[in-house]
Amino acid sequence: MKNIRFVLVGTTHPGNIGAAARAMKTMGLSNLHLVQPKHYPSAEATARASGADDVLASAQVHDSLAEAIADCQHVYGMSARLRHLPVPVVNPREAITHIQQLPDTSEIAIVFGREHSGLSNEELDRCQYLINIPANPDYSSLNLAAAVQVLAYEIKMSFDPSITVGRIGEDREAIDAGDLEHLYSHFEQTLTTIGFLDPENPRNLMRRLRRLYNRADLDRNELQILHGILRAAETGGQDK
Amino acid sequence: MKNIRFVLVGTTHPGNIGAAARAMKTMGLSNLHLVQPKHYPSAEATARASGADDVLASAQVHDSLAEAIADCQHVYGMSARLRHLPVPVVNPREAITHIQQLPDTSEIAIVFGREHSGLSNEELDRCQYLINIPANPDYSSLNLAAAVQVLAYEIKMSFDPSITVGRIGEDREAIDAGDLEHLYSHFEQTLTTIGFLDPENPRNLMRRLRRLYNRADLDRNELQILHGILRAAETGGQDK
Repeated sequence: MKNIRFVLVGTTHPGNIGAAARAMKTMGLSNLHLVQPKHYPSAEATARASGADDVLASAQVHDSLAEAIADCQHVYGMSARLRHLPVPVVNPREAITHIQQLPDTSEIAIVFGREHSGLSNEELDRCQYLINIPANPDYSSLNLAAAVQVLAYEIKMSFDPSITVGRIGEDREAIDAGDLEHLYSHFEQTLTTIGFLDPENPRNLMRRLRRLYNRADLDRNELQILHGILRAAETGGQDK
Repeated sequence: MKNIRFVLVGTTHPGNIGAAARAMKTMGLSNLHLVQPKHYPSAEATARASGADDVLASAQVHDSLAEAIADCQHVYGMSARLRHLPVPVVNPREAITHIQQLPDTSEIAIVFGREHSGLSNEELDRCQYLINIPANPDYSSLNLAAAVQVLAYEIKMSFDPSITVGRIGEDREAIDAGDLEHLYSHFEQTLTTIGFLDPENPRNLMRRLRRLYNRADLDRNELQILHGILRAAETGGQDK
């Protein structure tokens, strides 16, 4: 994980600061800096942080963006509008890819502007890159906490995307191709017995069943259930 | 773009429905379904939608999840907790990769549960996949609109991530390696003239300057500015 701080500049609604703190914490981030926040500190910020009050409590408040990023080597500014500025513009994923290549000792800032007016040109001049979240051109107004959530999510995904992938829960015992062949033989035999498969005119039935169960990634428990069903179908309940 | 609907089940706070509509619209999505929403319709939902009221107005309300997804071939359920269920769990990016491979005619649902209790086991049984947003294990509670924003963002990124990448705004005329060599000669000459570079003991100065300007991706306008500065330095203002 890199040393990434989120800098919120001139936030008007303290509730948004709380929601941003919450969004950061859900993704394991905690380094929050505030530049001239309005009506802050505020009970509304704390309420919206809901469990992320530690992130809020440790947030540093600054008089200027320059002060908030003074020790940063890399500064990325969020920009909703693609301005006429000769600064490279990247999407969040490209930005994080870039950040991943920086030395671990780098201090990195991602700067979020005011709710309505964004960052001033003077503030943008302090950014080496602009980050633009690809959005609906007719309605691109992500709210502040939503933008923070998207960036925090991208950071989390790039450094630690792991969840328990695949089937979870109960232990699954794998089966092999021989087990499957045995199952298909059983199907063929049973379906013939119960008159669903005509050996003289089998059509594509067995092929279809193979396709289905090959795809289904059966485990041993499920295999036994299917054999059990086939046995029960064969005897029509007569062995009970 | 695929036919992807977002289904919100049993949402308690109508404000969250509005915020979800807004999050969807920012990413170009509009197909919203609501299952037994509480206190809905509501002025708060409309207020929080702020400009996405068209998405809200066209949202379909259902009595059950079964009804909301009746015509869907592919159903993904959001799950914050990794439950002990034998269902494949993927992260949002993996889910979208999977969705991209589905036929364009597929009807696809992404199902979001209640704010506090998520989806019931019976509702999860109707999902072929679970989607888990990788999160801070100690604080994984994304709010509903934030989860909607993350999924909508992933969809947008996978189908249309394009922003204007690279430098934008004014037209930039590219320069070539010969232009750069000419610049470096000019630097060398000027820096010698003004006594900053000692030809007898040049150290690494020119190499460092090369490294800097090679990296800087100069355009012709910037090149001319640098030549101008060098000329001015050489004459010390005497040609004015």
